[in-house]
Amino acid sequence: MNAIRVAVIGAQGRMGAQAVDAIGEAEGLKLVAALGSSDSLEILRERNVDVAVELTVPKSTEDNVRWLVEHDIDTVVGTTGWDNERLARLEETLRSHPKTGVLIAPNFSIGAVLAMRFAELAAPYFDSAEVVEIHHTRKLDAPSGTANHTAQRIAAARSAAGLPQVPDSTESDPHGARGAVIDGIHVHAIRQQGMNAHEEIHLGSSGEALTIRTDSHSTSAFMPGIVTAVRSISEYTGLVHGLENMLDL
Amino acid sequence: MNAIRVAVIGAQGRMGAQAVDAIGEAEGLKLVAALGSSDSLEILRERNVDVAVELTVPKSTEDNVRWLVEHDIDTVVGTTGWDNERLARLEETLRSHPKTGVLIAPNFSIGAVLAMRFAELAAPYFDSAEVVEIHHTRKLDAPSGTANHTAQRIAAARSAAGLPQVPDSTESDPHGARGAVIDGIHVHAIRQQGMNAHEEIHLGSSGEALTIRTDSHSTSAFMPGIVTAVRSISEYTGLVHGLENMLDL
Amino acid sequence: MNAIRVAVIGAQGRMGAQAVDAIGEAEGLKLVAALGSSDSLEILRERNVDVAVELTVPKSTEDNVRWLVEHDIDTVVGTTGWDNERLARLEETLRSHPKTGVLIAPNFSIGAVLAMRFAELAAPYFDSAEVVEIHHTRKLDAPSGTANHTAQRIAAARSAAGLPQVPDSTESDPHGARGAVIDGIHVHAIRQQGMNAHEEIHLGSSGEALTIRTDSHSTSAFMPGIVTAVRSISEYTGLVHGLENMLDL
Amino acid sequence: MNAIRVAVIGAQGRMGAQAVDAIGEAEGLKLVAALGSSDSLEILRERNVDVAVELTVPKSTEDNVRWLVEHDIDTVVGTTGWDNERLARLEETLRSHPKTGVLIAPNFSIGAVLAMRFAELAAPYFDSAEVVEIHHTRKLDAPSGTANHTAQRIAAARSAAGLPQVPDSTESDPHGARGAVIDGIHVHAIRQQGMNAHEEIHLGSSGEALTIRTDSHSTSAFMPGIVTAVRSISEYTGLVHGLENMLDL
Repeated sequence: MNAIRVAVIGAQGRMGAQAVDAIGEAEGLKLVAALGSSDSLEILRERNVDVAVELTVPKSTEDNVRWLVEHDIDTVVGTTGWDNERLARLEETLRSHPKTGVLIAPNFSIGAVLAMRFAELAAPYFDSAEVVEIHHTRKLDAPSGTANHTAQRIAAARSAAGLPQVPDSTESDPHGARGAVIDGIHVHAIRQQGMNAHEEIHLGSSGEALTIRTDSHSTSAFMPGIVTAVRSISEYTGLVHGLENMLDL
Repeated sequence: MNAIRVAVIGAQGRMGAQAVDAIGEAEGLKLVAALGSSDSLEILRERNVDVAVELTVPKSTEDNVRWLVEHDIDTVVGTTGWDNERLARLEETLRSHPKTGVLIAPNFSIGAVLAMRFAELAAPYFDSAEVVEIHHTRKLDAPSGTANHTAQRIAAARSAAGLPQVPDSTESDPHGARGAVIDGIHVHAIRQQGMNAHEEIHLGSSGEALTIRTDSHSTSAFMPGIVTAVRSISEYTGLVHGLENMLDL
Repeated sequence: MNAIRVAVIGAQGRMGAQAVDAIGEAEGLKLVAALGSSDSLEILRERNVDVAVELTVPKSTEDNVRWLVEHDIDTVVGTTGWDNERLARLEETLRSHPKTGVLIAPNFSIGAVLAMRFAELAAPYFDSAEVVEIHHTRKLDAPSGTANHTAQRIAAARSAAGLPQVPDSTESDPHGARGAVIDGIHVHAIRQQGMNAHEEIHLGSSGEALTIRTDSHSTSAFMPGIVTAVRSISEYTGLVHGLENMLDL
Repeated sequence: MNAIRVAVIGAQGRMGAQAVDAIGEAEGLKLVAALGSSDSLEILRERNVDVAVELTVPKSTEDNVRWLVEHDIDTVVGTTGWDNERLARLEETLRSHPKTGVLIAPNFSIGAVLAMRFAELAAPYFDSAEVVEIHHTRKLDAPSGTANHTAQRIAAARSAAGLPQVPDSTESDPHGARGAVIDGIHVHAIRQQGMNAHEEIHLGSSGEALTIRTDSHSTSAFMPGIVTAVRSISEYTGLVHGLENMLDL
């Protein structure tokens, strides 16, 4: 089998530089282009790229991905900023290129993706569920997108299983210690110097608890997810939203 | 729909007494018999029992279950002591009663069953995997059956995915701190006053970790599993080994 | 040495009944009276009680303790409801009985008391500090008194060491995921079926974390603290507030 | 007050390079020399160094420290390899330089040092105690020196308090899951890809648990300890063994 020919767009950023290394070392993948912000996408055509990894910035990502789809290059996108409007326009473009696949993944940590999926699978069997996330102290928003999404998926799984609201007798909470409530699930955000990105999902019933914790100590945590996505994207067409769709669960 | 008519055999034991309460309170189930060690199984025929819960002792369980199968009563077994010979004889008996189902479950904690299943699903995506179990200080054997079984399933999942041995550079370990090695997976057993039954599965790759923890604080942790099994056993025939086969995973 | 003669007041309550057992079994202690709500305190004089353990209800505790001090019986109080006014009146009474000691302890869990003390000692060495508490779902208030008190002591220790506010860049937290802020320290309260009383203190600096966790699985967790207090109270006079003052730290 | 004039010896190593940065940024400290392996120690005399930080390799450290003491320069040593013979020789040298202080610290992580101290303080109050350490997969020995030392200090504290052996009913442990036994305390070592250096101390009694965890995510975790030691060493004379002696506990 020929190696998959891969380009990294945004190769000078932190994630991009690590992706260049990870793809360079991964069996079955061949890095044929590493583009910085001043390089032309035309290089990708000259080098017969099979899969592009887009790791730039929110203001560039939509134009880049449109160009890639129009040139029928399967694409793995790790840049944020894909709101519903952008996704709709992308799906429109993909309709005219039915053989091309694009993965948009808000989180390439396989641990985080598995944790969310397991939380969803386990939720119907427990009375209580809460989410705690811990992040570095430079983070601007709380809770994290991952914690928010985890709570939504737990809520949906509980609802589908016919579970009632989580039990809670709190009558007095003058300072808001019970945290955020996302679709009925309480979410707590800790900001701690020396930490990176961490999530803990607490599930409980009479006499027992199940706790799922995921730790991303550094951006290197995202590389196995990116490599997995690059290897798999050619088997997909259209828009794939979330790395979990590519794991064997 | 008529309530399922349930009998508990071994109703005077600790687990049995709790099962009597749990079944009495569970929607859709009706407790119609609670047998102690001196009661005759004939009572079950008189009371038209649909499902029997067998929670006695290793020396009685095989005779009880054979009688139940011969009388076509679906059975949920929580008693230990079912070695391969006993299982083979039970399967033989079940062949002449093709409509009857028996669940033999070494662990009715839904949390523990889910943890094992999730460990198995996640194992192919991580370089490292180890298991730690914590139990009360009256436990005679180490590691626990659940930890042993978890290690075996992680090992099988890694092997099926083509993963190599876990990375380990240990050259000097004079006192055995690296613990037991079960099918290549290290297993550690802690004995701690005040604890009951707990398991922690550690999975790690460069930059990330996934940790799955299950706590059974008391035997009440087993009741949701028993109730789930009683509700589901009529949909099965033959021998079902392990509660995980009845969960929607 | 003669055994210390102990009375339990409030012996029919949950804590009281366990205290009766714990004192009955403790070396060097002799249980000589176990009073229910209809028994007269006069019994204590007849039985030459050295130490009383007061485990009744908020509305009775002040009258009981005043009577005990007036009769020069050293007292260990586990009942809640001692606000500043009550404490002031008690100190007034104690002034006329200079040989008598009273311990008022909001928490008899030695683990919880140690955790608070360690948090206070460690706080000056870390940039970040947050508190998470987990309690059963019947709890009416959030956060717990222990978590509240822990945050206050961390804040005081940081302040005494000249530390600035904890670092936090949060700009957007629409649902309150950052939790309660007690004296500048964030406190989070989880309510989970199957849990009892638990606290986790997170301390962090660049590259490192220190986490202190205390779990009280049942009221039996309070018995070692009560026994320790009963053994030590005769060495104290006046009001002692908090079990930590009796531990060798 | 004049700034303390500091030299780093071994400035080209990983720890040394970080120490150069940390000292350069620390208030009240002035980095006046950063020596590599080919530089002469004579530079330290020319630059009037107050405190030297020795971060070289086991084969050089003893000669370096002897030279520093002979030139009356207070010294903070982070290099390993100081066995009892070397320590004895160093104390001999220090006797002729009674105003000079040397700190030899096996661990500069303040979190790890605090965790050990807290474990020792708490140990007398709990029936059970075990230690778990987690390290990266390149580590050659198990258990870690820190875990070994923690177990010894817990054992000594238990012994001083008159506690019996930890309760343990294990009769069957064919694969060694109960781990290493150091002075009667069980120690478990996990090796996990993506982790760095972590320790968890488990203390338990009937109904309760106290868990102390310390995480060193990177060598940056050692810098606050080094800076604290550089600031304090001038107040000491002779040999100080262990950073804990310089913390306010």
